[in-house]
Amino acid sequence: MSRVRVLAFSVSLDGFSAGPDQALDQPLGVRGPELMGWVFPTRSFNAMHGAPGGEIPGETGVDDGFVARSFDNMGAWILGRHMFGPVRGPWPDASWRGWWGEEPPYHVPVFVLTHHARPPLVMQGGTTFHFVTDGIESALAQARAAANGRDVRIGGGPATVRQYLQAGLIDDLHLALRPVLMGQGEPLFAGLDLHALGYEAVQVVPGERATHVLLRKRGS
Amino acid sequence: MSRVRVLAFSVSLDGFSAGPDQALDQPLGVRGPELMGWVFPTRSFNAMHGAPGGEIPGETGVDDGFVARSFDNMGAWILGRHMFGPVRGPWPDASWRGWWGEEPPYHVPVFVLTHHARPPLVMQGGTTFHFVTDGIESALAQARAAANGRDVRIGGGPATVRQYLQAGLIDDLHLALRPVLMGQGEPLFAGLDLHALGYEAVQVVPGERATHVLLRKRGS
Repeated sequence: MSRVRVLAFSVSLDGFSAGPDQALDQPLGVRGPELMGWVFPTRSFNAMHGAPGGEIPGETGVDDGFVARSFDNMGAWILGRHMFGPVRGPWPDASWRGWWGEEPPYHVPVFVLTHHARPPLVMQGGTTFHFVTDGIESALAQARAAANGRDVRIGGGPATVRQYLQAGLIDDLHLALRPVLMGQGEPLFAGLDLHALGYEAVQVVPGERATHVLLRKRGS
Repeated sequence: MSRVRVLAFSVSLDGFSAGPDQALDQPLGVRGPELMGWVFPTRSFNAMHGAPGGEIPGETGVDDGFVARSFDNMGAWILGRHMFGPVRGPWPDASWRGWWGEEPPYHVPVFVLTHHARPPLVMQGGTTFHFVTDGIESALAQARAAANGRDVRIGGGPATVRQYLQAGLIDDLHLALRPVLMGQGEPLFAGLDLHALGYEAVQVVPGERATHVLLRKRGS
């Protein structure tokens, strides 16, 4: 059965999942790289984003295992508009083709939530970006159909994850709690009553640079 | 050198440090006992709160070690008014003598922040409650003097800890991150920029029922 999942999603001690002031030259926001700092040293991250050929560098271990498994059985992705392009800048201009170059690391259909209609954008390596202008439920229906029985991953950002949580549409979340204090940024939990929405923590796994917590919607 | 410390302070995944609707019959608020659920199974908790005599039950391990050490070198405590008595009910009536019976587990002077003046209350076992009506800095000055070189512990609740953090007066925090979703309650971090205030995480220790994170103010 296809599941709707949020995986490898970083959260700071003080509850932020992205830094403030995202822009073309800082796609993760101010201090966002520190928030994500458990991902970059892993071998799996380098395997996805590194140059082809030769030995793949990086650490193996608990954190690496979570990065590796976050791509298992994934049939489609859903991204908020800031995950696809900067708040200000060339997007939604059609010349903007995403943050990742010509071969993005998805290799499956990706549904981008936006108010700007645009034809599908076929990239190398199996990724096609579809631009969805009629809301989160439509995006999920389209992603489920495209995933063809495999899982749908809500890739972020925080505002998109929050919308899907509030609607009760997410089955699983793997949060990577980072021991950093952001102070500012985009909060993940603020104003959401995840207990009332039926979510509970089912597992805690200490990693090298993050504490991994698995949440599940009861009955899902 | 005397330090100002917050120790064994529970925080839920979604950033709450107390449940909602604290009252005489639920001093920790709704689901507060679940938030504190890493403390109750420990041998050190039973040693402090259990009946005297006989074998002391309870688990030893990482969580127990943090509970045990939280009383080391403590010369005075500061408590917010809700830590001393319920939001509604007999307090500030002079018949209210705290939550803990005639021998509270402090055994040192305790300074209670309140708007209601009251003479000091001498309890059994070394605890004296002093009622401070002129603010957090006065309470800290009095507690430092009473501690006589030992440490001052800010015992809570969340609103009191937040006031001292905002004023930059806390040197160390040991947070026990609990894998529970409260959904509602008293937030610890909301609206505080702990990064800008100079705090940083210096250690993460996985425990049996909580992940222990040590924060320190830079330069303290």
